[in-house]
Amino acid sequence: MCLYKKMNQAELEAELSKLNKEYIKFQNMQLNLNMSRGKPCPDQLELSSDMIEKINYSQLAKTDSGIDTRNYGELTGIPEAKKLFASILNVPDDMIIVGGNSSLNLMYNYVDMAMQFGLLGNTPWNKLDNVKFLCPVPGYDRHFAICELFNIEMINIEMTEDGPNMNQVKQLAESDPSVKGIWCVPKYSNPSGVTYSSDVVKQFAKLKPAAHDFRILWDNAYVIHHLSEDHDSLLNIFDECKKFNSENMVIEFCSTSKVTFPGAGISALAASKSNIKDIIKIMSKQTIGHDKINQLRHCIFFDSAEKLKKHMESHAKILKPKFDLVVNKLNDQIAPLNIGKWTNPKGGYFISFNSLEGCGKRIYELCKQAGVVLTNIGATFPYSQDPENSNIRIAPTFPSINELSKAMDVFCLCVKIASVEKFLSKTSGKTN
Amino acid sequence: MCLYKKMNQAELEAELSKLNKEYIKFQNMQLNLNMSRGKPCPDQLELSSDMIEKINYSQLAKTDSGIDTRNYGELTGIPEAKKLFASILNVPDDMIIVGGNSSLNLMYNYVDMAMQFGLLGNTPWNKLDNVKFLCPVPGYDRHFAICELFNIEMINIEMTEDGPNMNQVKQLAESDPSVKGIWCVPKYSNPSGVTYSSDVVKQFAKLKPAAHDFRILWDNAYVIHHLSEDHDSLLNIFDECKKFNSENMVIEFCSTSKVTFPGAGISALAASKSNIKDIIKIMSKQTIGHDKINQLRHCIFFDSAEKLKKHMESHAKILKPKFDLVVNKLNDQIAPLNIGKWTNPKGGYFISFNSLEGCGKRIYELCKQAGVVLTNIGATFPYSQDPENSNIRIAPTFPSINELSKAMDVFCLCVKIASVEKFLSKTSGKTN
Repeated sequence: MCLYKKMNQAELEAELSKLNKEYIKFQNMQLNLNMSRGKPCPDQLELSSDMIEKINYSQLAKTDSGIDTRNYGELTGIPEAKKLFASILNVPDDMIIVGGNSSLNLMYNYVDMAMQFGLLGNTPWNKLDNVKFLCPVPGYDRHFAICELFNIEMINIEMTEDGPNMNQVKQLAESDPSVKGIWCVPKYSNPSGVTYSSDVVKQFAKLKPAAHDFRILWDNAYVIHHLSEDHDSLLNIFDECKKFNSENMVIEFCSTSKVTFPGAGISALAASKSNIKDIIKIMSKQTIGHDKINQLRHCIFFDSAEKLKKHMESHAKILKPKFDLVVNKLNDQIAPLNIGKWTNPKGGYFISFNSLEGCGKRIYELCKQAGVVLTNIGATFPYSQDPENSNIRIAPTFPSINELSKAMDVFCLCVKIASVEKFLSKTSGKTN
Repeated sequence: MCLYKKMNQAELEAELSKLNKEYIKFQNMQLNLNMSRGKPCPDQLELSSDMIEKINYSQLAKTDSGIDTRNYGELTGIPEAKKLFASILNVPDDMIIVGGNSSLNLMYNYVDMAMQFGLLGNTPWNKLDNVKFLCPVPGYDRHFAICELFNIEMINIEMTEDGPNMNQVKQLAESDPSVKGIWCVPKYSNPSGVTYSSDVVKQFAKLKPAAHDFRILWDNAYVIHHLSEDHDSLLNIFDECKKFNSENMVIEFCSTSKVTFPGAGISALAASKSNIKDIIKIMSKQTIGHDKINQLRHCIFFDSAEKLKKHMESHAKILKPKFDLVVNKLNDQIAPLNIGKWTNPKGGYFISFNSLEGCGKRIYELCKQAGVVLTNIGATFPYSQDPENSNIRIAPTFPSINELSKAMDVFCLCVKIASVEKFLSKTSGKTN
């Protein structure tokens, strides 16, 4: 393959004409493929079938400690479920509050509580003129959507290969008391797949924010979601915070959405004792507590750390070939042309692709018109604004290998077309 | 029995001494009984065992309409669950949003949304100097707790045998734009057991509140919770509202907490299409949606209206003897002395007892010291302030018949002691 940037106008036009012919072939196939959704595939869901099939009523009605899971009570979760999450997050049981099937909901509630009631006796954020959040980009659209809803100003923070650019974080958090928090997906980050380095975690723990009620919202969504035995490890932020007496700064979240069932899992938050007390004050008015039968169902299904580990390995067995396929297609078709960069994560749910600057939306449109749906361009940025119009979140988990293979062929072709068009517009003096 | 109010001081002292001897006998029994909790008893919970025991994984994984309940999606609930609640509340399916296991949480979220974001484009209540709510009393403590948390001023409204005093409601709601809502338990009200009369429901529908964003929070917690075939019926408020174009004024709530499992049921709200749209705008940022497997589990278990009806009859069979026992004890032991009044509801979870004025806390204390826990005095009023110190919510559902019988004997004795003490303090010129 010849590099597009070395082609003259005639060569580019010939290349484009060739690519368009291929493109029409795909269009004629009337494909209907989707690489936009970070959803487990049906095979993954089947891995948890025994959690429903094999656990009977008498096991579920009462915990070993004698709690009737069917009735009211246990606002913050049954002890067994706290233990399960405590072992996943490696914190003491009493740092855990168990939630419903949505860790997003725990995050929303925490921000809502900060807005409405304030954190640990501080002024409610609602009563302040300005509230700002730091947002490492690209990041998770649902985090940004919460900020946007509450009118919290979002400031982009560069993501490096080690995690957020901590010079930027430090400079902004330590100088501006209106900066109240930061969204983090510290392990196999959404969408880049980056795991924060030990140095980054330590710098977070050492942070001295200007705001006393600054919070690191540590969304550890992919904490045990490795793709193979060769996996990343993440420092326990609470252990680091202990050294600097900064444990109140962190609220950690996780869930079994991508362990058992996204539609019927359980979630948890981990926090310092002061923060737990602060949350319970509101939570006790907010709900009667979450589904305890489903909590116990999960605890019986994962009755040992070994069982959970094996279960996640079964997920990996399904997912690894899909991630490999995407990366291989990009290596084969895009790498030689030098018209994009991408990540090759060791876990999580996404591959982050960056096209040449300005090509993102065109690639999205081309894919769409050939029957391949991608995540909206900009979704990975606050206010849906990708300043470089280039980041595309590839979600390889849901489609079958065959579908994914076809979808990636379409994707690579569309990247090529958009790239040639970009060079052509330069050559012919037009701006893109 | 001789009426206490006709006794002189010596007779009262003799009576008190006799009662105290009985009281000591109970104390010596070291009882540990509880009539404070509106909880189903274990026998009631067993009625729903088949919902877990007899429904298998393959039935639960997919709806008839092809929705994978295990995966993400269906924010507002699966169609089957909407249909189930629509049939219970007698509204169209598209007026339903399905929630998690806590209808209280749906109520909290709605008030939270009004505070933070405003309703249907109106000013968020947070931004107003004053927000007031009307609270028919006695009422449900958890409603009042939400108002108190949000610093919403609560105004007591008298409960009559037909429901809230609508003259008071009309006068306050129609004159004061800071009056933003009212809490209602329209059927088998908590704790009085009153069902709102058709006239009251019609007057609600006709209300012309000064506030455009006034809301009737219609907590229909006991909509199908009859104690026998001789049951109350409640007018459908949405049907009435249609006549006056006031459907946006009502948000209705219900749940299966006292149908299947309090700890693992499902809940719903019903509202006009405008309000549903308003709620979804926030809900879509707030959660990924609620547990769909549990929704389907409920829909399969209640696959016909007949099945649900029979199920509620089984509940009634367990509960009716308990309500009868309480009322019979009161009729036998308290009625002849004329030292209290109580309700005899046809459904719901409570009997509301009013002692002589000023005796409530003393009865509570006496019961407590004899090993019988009652609902806190004042809990049925805003700010936990019962102006007459007399209302006691009796919750007969959880204890066994034997326990309940003993607890009621203690209760009646304590009512007598507190009443005699009251008359004695009058006779001796002391104030109580």
